[in-house]
Amino acid sequence: MKSDNLLDILPTRKIPWLSADQANGDVVFSTRVRLARNITGYPFPGRSSRDDRHRVCEVIKSVFPLSPQFDNAMVTDLHALGKVDRRFLFERHLIGSGQQNREHGDAVIASADERCSIIINEEDHLRLQVLQSGLRLHEVWPQIDRLDDSLSEELPYAFHKHYGYLTSCPSNVGTGLRASVMLHLPGLVFNGHIDSLIRAVNNLGFAVRGTFGEGSEVTGNLFQISNQSTLGEEEHQIICRLHRLVRHIITLEIDARQLLLERQAAELYDHVGRVYGQLRYCFKIGFRETMTWLSTIHLGIDLGMFPSLKKSELSELLVLLQSGHLQKGDNKRMTKEKQDMRRAEILKERLST
Amino acid sequence: MKSDNLLDILPTRKIPWLSADQANGDVVFSTRVRLARNITGYPFPGRSSRDDRHRVCEVIKSVFPLSPQFDNAMVTDLHALGKVDRRFLFERHLIGSGQQNREHGDAVIASADERCSIIINEEDHLRLQVLQSGLRLHEVWPQIDRLDDSLSEELPYAFHKHYGYLTSCPSNVGTGLRASVMLHLPGLVFNGHIDSLIRAVNNLGFAVRGTFGEGSEVTGNLFQISNQSTLGEEEHQIICRLHRLVRHIITLEIDARQLLLERQAAELYDHVGRVYGQLRYCFKIGFRETMTWLSTIHLGIDLGMFPSLKKSELSELLVLLQSGHLQKGDNKRMTKEKQDMRRAEILKERLST
Repeated sequence: MKSDNLLDILPTRKIPWLSADQANGDVVFSTRVRLARNITGYPFPGRSSRDDRHRVCEVIKSVFPLSPQFDNAMVTDLHALGKVDRRFLFERHLIGSGQQNREHGDAVIASADERCSIIINEEDHLRLQVLQSGLRLHEVWPQIDRLDDSLSEELPYAFHKHYGYLTSCPSNVGTGLRASVMLHLPGLVFNGHIDSLIRAVNNLGFAVRGTFGEGSEVTGNLFQISNQSTLGEEEHQIICRLHRLVRHIITLEIDARQLLLERQAAELYDHVGRVYGQLRYCFKIGFRETMTWLSTIHLGIDLGMFPSLKKSELSELLVLLQSGHLQKGDNKRMTKEKQDMRRAEILKERLST
Repeated sequence: MKSDNLLDILPTRKIPWLSADQANGDVVFSTRVRLARNITGYPFPGRSSRDDRHRVCEVIKSVFPLSPQFDNAMVTDLHALGKVDRRFLFERHLIGSGQQNREHGDAVIASADERCSIIINEEDHLRLQVLQSGLRLHEVWPQIDRLDDSLSEELPYAFHKHYGYLTSCPSNVGTGLRASVMLHLPGLVFNGHIDSLIRAVNNLGFAVRGTFGEGSEVTGNLFQISNQSTLGEEEHQIICRLHRLVRHIITLEIDARQLLLERQAAELYDHVGRVYGQLRYCFKIGFRETMTWLSTIHLGIDLGMFPSLKKSELSELLVLLQSGHLQKGDNKRMTKEKQDMRRAEILKERLST
């Protein structure tokens, strides 16, 4: 196990897993699966003492490397890090939102390509996580399952024969599994079917998170779909059900885009063109707006409007233009307004075709 | 008097009077003064027979050239022209809106630089008109006054010793004078003072026409101010009152812009930049929106944001991108959607810096 500091390496390099070829990348941005686990004999992190947190952290660190994915694993203790660094790791999906505040014994172990990570002492003692671009549930699930198996041989997991894995929050008890897929659905937003789709998805037991404006009005085109329940269903069933659902939504989205192109091509080109113009010539821009508009440019690439732009670069911008990344990039704290201005500068530079 | 056809010459050339240096051009786009006159012994055009209309037209044509401005005057009979040609001349301010429909005896006599014209048989037998860029009331008024004097020596004007010049519409009786100034007031729109300014201007007896959205909300930055009354005040008094009022508004506008730059520079640059991006990358755009946004780009030029764009080119675009000009330029009838797409194409080309 190497102990290179993540924060020395990450800020200056591309995000390796985003550069990979994407399966169904026109519609699915990324796949993410995580497992919540705890070690028996220690209180859950929210209730444990400083010493217990440190002990749990040491126990987990001591059993590495366990899996081929972690050959070049990097371990980072979070307690010593400043606010910007922790924000940066959060935006990179490497720590949880709770870990943006300083806590004893917090740490993250990440593979060199950032795809696999173990978050230590967030809500649970361990959160195993595997990320991948495109729709890759059937690749990602066996990877995290193998990692979990190896760890379970070394670490005494808190497990109940009736309930399954025990977790800090009851909503994770059972499998401790949360599988999620980030979808890009401009066609269904444009044709107004998105709201009924979201209701249907909810009724099937999946949660949908999107960019919503006032009330429940959808303002962006990006939606994360994940399983709600972790009890009463085996892991591979959850994965298969989610996979089938996403395949179905992909078909709906592609049909919607096809119809739009046949019936409202001028409106579509006009909308995408204006979004591009604004992104390129704005003087300041917030991250949420950036995210919404970049997903529109993504659609423009699919429509053949921007031959010299690459989708993987847009996906990377969605990470790089977040608050912590901007500040880490310039190596200083920035006000919200300075961040908005810096974000606009980078967009102008990156979007020039 | 030459009888070159306006429609052979105008479509392929720049608008001469817009290319001139502009006085107070940051705020004032253009000055326009017109006089309504009728010839005694003939019914007003709205009530006259086909023969009377033709006779009036011949009488007026026969007294040219009368003034140095009209040395290279071009006479155009409107009756033979198609819809697009008449629309084109209307957008060029050379005929009245009523003359977009075919009527016997309609004609226009225009100076070679399009600044001076006489419209024949619109609402009145004659409408003399002089246009100029910038705030030029004190230049334009003597010009039109001299032209009127020369004409009055040859033509028996309908004149009443108590009421003054008689006109088809009572609102023009007296001086028959309408002096108007086109103002660009983004500062006062941005700071929200425009509504109270409009009320104050109305109370002083001047009319304000702008681009208004739903209700009375202002959506554009262009406002035309003109005198309401033509009775009870001498011509030079009307001209002087309007000039003083406009000078005052210019001061208010410049102060408003200065304050905006001091307090909201980032918002201002951002707004102008986004407008520029949309104009440059839209796929279709209506004329009203174009007009609103081009006036914003005008402000951007004043702010130094577009060193390679010239204000006179924008002012010209405001003419060239109108419906009739687009159709005349491509020499064919176009649907509204085709016009919107062609307009976007021209903008993309002309705004590339």
